[in-house]
Amino acid sequence: MGGDHGPEVTIPALGLAARRLGPDVRFLAHGEVQLIEAELAQIRDLAGRVEIRHTEKQVASDEKPATALRRGKGSSMWNAVEAVKLGEAAGAVSAGNTGALMAISKLILRMSADLDRPCLTASWPTVRGFTTVLDVGANVDCDAARLVEFAILGEAFHRAAHGVERPTVGLLNVGSEDIKGHEEVREAHRILREGGAGLNYYGFVEGDDLTQGVVDVVVTDGFTGNVALKTAEGVAKFISGELRSALTSSLPSKLGALLARKALLAFRERLSPPAAAPLLGLNGVVVKGHGGATVRDFADAIQVAADLARSDFAAEISRSLGRLGLAAQPMTAEAGQGGE
Amino acid sequence: MGGDHGPEVTIPALGLAARRLGPDVRFLAHGEVQLIEAELAQIRDLAGRVEIRHTEKQVASDEKPATALRRGKGSSMWNAVEAVKLGEAAGAVSAGNTGALMAISKLILRMSADLDRPCLTASWPTVRGFTTVLDVGANVDCDAARLVEFAILGEAFHRAAHGVERPTVGLLNVGSEDIKGHEEVREAHRILREGGAGLNYYGFVEGDDLTQGVVDVVVTDGFTGNVALKTAEGVAKFISGELRSALTSSLPSKLGALLARKALLAFRERLSPPAAAPLLGLNGVVVKGHGGATVRDFADAIQVAADLARSDFAAEISRSLGRLGLAAQPMTAEAGQGGE
Repeated sequence: MGGDHGPEVTIPALGLAARRLGPDVRFLAHGEVQLIEAELAQIRDLAGRVEIRHTEKQVASDEKPATALRRGKGSSMWNAVEAVKLGEAAGAVSAGNTGALMAISKLILRMSADLDRPCLTASWPTVRGFTTVLDVGANVDCDAARLVEFAILGEAFHRAAHGVERPTVGLLNVGSEDIKGHEEVREAHRILREGGAGLNYYGFVEGDDLTQGVVDVVVTDGFTGNVALKTAEGVAKFISGELRSALTSSLPSKLGALLARKALLAFRERLSPPAAAPLLGLNGVVVKGHGGATVRDFADAIQVAADLARSDFAAEISRSLGRLGLAAQPMTAEAGQGGE
Repeated sequence: MGGDHGPEVTIPALGLAARRLGPDVRFLAHGEVQLIEAELAQIRDLAGRVEIRHTEKQVASDEKPATALRRGKGSSMWNAVEAVKLGEAAGAVSAGNTGALMAISKLILRMSADLDRPCLTASWPTVRGFTTVLDVGANVDCDAARLVEFAILGEAFHRAAHGVERPTVGLLNVGSEDIKGHEEVREAHRILREGGAGLNYYGFVEGDDLTQGVVDVVVTDGFTGNVALKTAEGVAKFISGELRSALTSSLPSKLGALLARKALLAFRERLSPPAAAPLLGLNGVVVKGHGGATVRDFADAIQVAADLARSDFAAEISRSLGRLGLAAQPMTAEAGQGGE
């Protein structure tokens, strides 16, 4: 039911994902049965592969996370996450309210790592492909242990989602020497360099290394990561706007832009980040699709969830955290953890 | 003597600055007398307006700040800053080694604010003009008091350099509500909102507001600011590179790019930040020109120094810091301060 368009987008996206993922993948669709059936009827690929779990309740896109926690039980979002907890689904995908999805996922699935909230991840376009950047906003206060957890989560995600056997991991800093940066980042650097986590650790990277694709995974606290991501989005938007003005400023430049139209469209496509982000650090797979996701975008989000569910992702994280003594609780013993 | 080209650029830049600033401005040129005289001979506008202070000693561009402090005495950089201390010059301008300039300036002029090092400032191109962003790398650990000091320094600089009577000031955060962000940024927000510093405080801004020019001055800690600045530079470079590939990918797009050449050059010019940055928080005016500065760039740096020296800049800062009880020492009583 989530996102700007609801079943009109999410159900055709299921169809696209069904074709991509092959016949052994089945779906639970949570939401209004009539709306979902109307869309399903038009998609042959989904015949017999979708089970509808009816509910009329929804989490509104502007609902506060705390309200969603109090009143969200039985909503389509809640039920989708609960199906993961109950083992009925291998992963949940939603294009709905991000804050609510994080809060509900944390409450139902619990954290496998010692974080305030599930870690938000960005897939950052680079000259070489995509770099996984985390945390981009969920955990604002980060000590060295948290930064190391992000490294473990991001590395396992990058392998599962991009098929890179040994992703390289870098720690975002203001310089490359050991003495640079604040205490938290220097201490995380020391732990990662010592190699206990078993990662392919590169060392410090700087802001301009993000777009260079110097490493596969860039680790930073949620404050810095959020500022870097939004700054990059702002710069990209600014440059596109300036470019548009420049290319419509005179007749020759308009003609030029017309001739170069195809190349300029390809250029814009190249800069668009993927519209799916996993919520990392939970005991279970939850993927957030962009609110304005198109059919292709939402199918990509479903693909990410399937890639994570099919991989050894959760066990790898558990092992790496365990090696460093960082796991808050093993995945089978959540009872002792505090609630929301 | 500083920068990639030395007197070949700095002396013609003095000529350009002399024409811009009018006849009441005179210059002290520190460095090798023969090199300087050879350049001076070619510039009529400088006749009788430049006093050469000969020294053969220079700070190398790759010299560590600590080495520059130990061995830099009597170098052209050292003498330029010392002239400010002695009241012989109203400001110092250098295109040399940034770290050395910061360390030497701190030692000779002392800090007026409670900072590790002089604050580094970026002039950020926006849809409306330029936003002053600080700190972009000098003071990595920042409590609320420091963030407030940056606000005071940045506001006074922006007024002096851009002639804006009441610059608006924003605090960089991961959201706009009072509860967002970490403790330091929330506390600084509280102090600034209460208005004791007398600034035109806007509130929190986010990464994408930087290029939107939402406020005149954006305040952040040196860690986040450095990452944001380098991220923005990386994104701009990445997009330029992708655009170049797109526009040379086929014959039509090449023709298009040729037709739009003038517009694309204007576009690139529009994105270039000014090549001068003040070192803020010192008892005196010091401006850093980019190492690769052209004649026009270095003349711009001289202009910034002149604007600051002619303004009420230092007194304004002193008053604002004093109002909040933040001034480490008044400007006339430096003896009690610790050394480097």
